[in-house]
Amino acid sequence: MHKVIIRNELASLKDYWSQKVIAEANGQLFKVAKGIGPINWHHHDDQDELFILYDGHLTIELRTDKTTDRTEEIQLADGELFVVPKGVEHRVRAEEEAAFLIVGLNITSTRQGGKPAWSFSGQDATP
Amino acid sequence: MHKVIIRNELASLKDYWSQKVIAEANGQLFKVAKGIGPINWHHHDDQDELFILYDGHLTIELRTDKTTDRTEEIQLADGELFVVPKGVEHRVRAEEEAAFLIVGLNITSTRQGGKPAWSFSGQDATP
Repeated sequence: MHKVIIRNELASLKDYWSQKVIAEANGQLFKVAKGIGPINWHHHDDQDELFILYDGHLTIELRTDKTTDRTEEIQLADGELFVVPKGVEHRVRAEEEAAFLIVGLNITSTRQGGKPAWSFSGQDATP
Repeated sequence: MHKVIIRNELASLKDYWSQKVIAEANGQLFKVAKGIGPINWHHHDDQDELFILYDGHLTIELRTDKTTDRTEEIQLADGELFVVPKGVEHRVRAEEEAAFLIVGLNITSTRQGGKPAWSFSGQDATP
């Protein structure tokens, strides 16, 4: 049994907006990722998505009222936590590089999860 | 929808070894606690228990081999994460005050969860 040093895992990330699983507990994946710029609007029908920021600043936009298209913004700094509830449309952006922990049922750094086309590399590069 | 500032939640804690729920996602509780000294040996049949340290140092002792009573120690510092697997006997201790995040299915700061008698207050004070 081994501990995980979160900052080392964050430092090991090569790609933006790609999640790396660092632990699992009770069926939840604990994942690290780094991001820059915006991702695309999306939602998760199957899970809440929890963020804890470790470096930089992250803005989470939420479409809280579908009828009026009204959006709400949450600004996260180091040591701050936010839960995007299941089903709520959201997108995330970072003006400068941000690094964070994400907790959820599975990997959500996919096209469906809002991952921007430029952030795919290798065999995933075709939009 | 509101963000949670983890350090503020940790600073708000009055009692040792008592958990305060700060978020919920996918049926998991995200809880903060502070501790000093050792708690008692215990295990959780129903859940893994995940720790992320925020301040101080925490030692997690695990009884990894029931037949020989052999124990293993994990030392956690700020920004380090460890999962105590479901069913594994463990106890936690802090030489000086430590503050941490715990993730699990329910509140585990109970007698059954190893909470030492001295740390109960008010109506819970009777061992």
